[in-house]
Amino acid sequence: MELYSYFRSSASFRVRIALALKSLPYDYRTVHLVRNEQTGPAFAAVSPQRLVPLLKDGEATLTQSMAIIEYLDEVYPEPPLMPADPLGRARVRSLSQDIACEIHPLDNLRVLRYLVKELGASEDAKNAWYRHWVEVGLEVVERQLSEQPATGTFCHGDTPTMADCLLVPQIFNAQRFDCRLDHVPTVMRIFENCMRLPAFLAAQPSACPDADA
Amino acid sequence: MELYSYFRSSASFRVRIALALKSLPYDYRTVHLVRNEQTGPAFAAVSPQRLVPLLKDGEATLTQSMAIIEYLDEVYPEPPLMPADPLGRARVRSLSQDIACEIHPLDNLRVLRYLVKELGASEDAKNAWYRHWVEVGLEVVERQLSEQPATGTFCHGDTPTMADCLLVPQIFNAQRFDCRLDHVPTVMRIFENCMRLPAFLAAQPSACPDADA
Repeated sequence: MELYSYFRSSASFRVRIALALKSLPYDYRTVHLVRNEQTGPAFAAVSPQRLVPLLKDGEATLTQSMAIIEYLDEVYPEPPLMPADPLGRARVRSLSQDIACEIHPLDNLRVLRYLVKELGASEDAKNAWYRHWVEVGLEVVERQLSEQPATGTFCHGDTPTMADCLLVPQIFNAQRFDCRLDHVPTVMRIFENCMRLPAFLAAQPSACPDADA
Repeated sequence: MELYSYFRSSASFRVRIALALKSLPYDYRTVHLVRNEQTGPAFAAVSPQRLVPLLKDGEATLTQSMAIIEYLDEVYPEPPLMPADPLGRARVRSLSQDIACEIHPLDNLRVLRYLVKELGASEDAKNAWYRHWVEVGLEVVERQLSEQPATGTFCHGDTPTMADCLLVPQIFNAQRFDCRLDHVPTVMRIFENCMRLPAFLAAQPSACPDADA
């Protein structure tokens, strides 16, 4: 397998965690987002979206982090990252989408660039925007994790699922932008449980071959 | 079943299409987004996210439109809205996420409100923002639909899938905000094929019980 990734891309980080949890080896292909390599001809020839992550598995090209993780779980089922029951799967997908559809899209690099370039947002206004969506969005995740009995050591039960693959990179982003996190204690408890596992440590940005020195 | 919906919510529209394609009856519960009913105490008691759509199926409460559609497909499998093979499922999920994670979150009502209230964006700047993300995002979808042989009468093959449930509401939004659509002919061909089916017509905003007169 080949993973097109950027160390700081949290969508790439999600897939790196899933690959590590399943002990699947892969070649790491760097797409440097800050240098705009995702829109350059080399990557465009591979990727219809011009977005990382992109996974090549034999002849197959897979895009979108949650779709990639579910594919990996279907084709390489051990250990499972999705619950065995439809309601459990729905809960894990919903928690994942609370992050992937409600928080992360608003704080993407290209969105932050638009705020500054097209709307003239100041550095302070841009950072306030970033923190707003993270803090409000994580509150929604916290409410579910703290109130629903299916929560365990991890987001759903006592083994990591796709939801944990989404949660951890979002917390890395939150910490990098000094977001408030004291209002989400269950989220942070689960984050810490994840970060005790070798797979999460091996997938983190600082462990990537393209990490800044 | 009970569906908490708002006629103009495109995430609700996605689920209404899936329910209609499967001929599943449900009670329609209006959550009036423009009057902020989603943050009021009545809906908050039901919904951890304070977002529509929310589906109640017996004792189960389901949230996030793509998670709801996949749940419906697993529990009420006929007609299927997901392909039978892992690569097909990955493609349908990826196309769906290209809309649900890259386009729609940026044009949500709460985001548009933040642009105006917190960043002082003018009406023109707000509309330019809206159109920008729709036009750029649909171009990505077009590239895949026009280049990949799995595309058929619909996004994936010749029967509707989850991807069509996501595509159609996004086009309704695009038309409402006068977005450019002449650069996405395959998208528009599939949109028109969908809108010939009774299920898509029955689910559209103007057919909802809470539609504006």
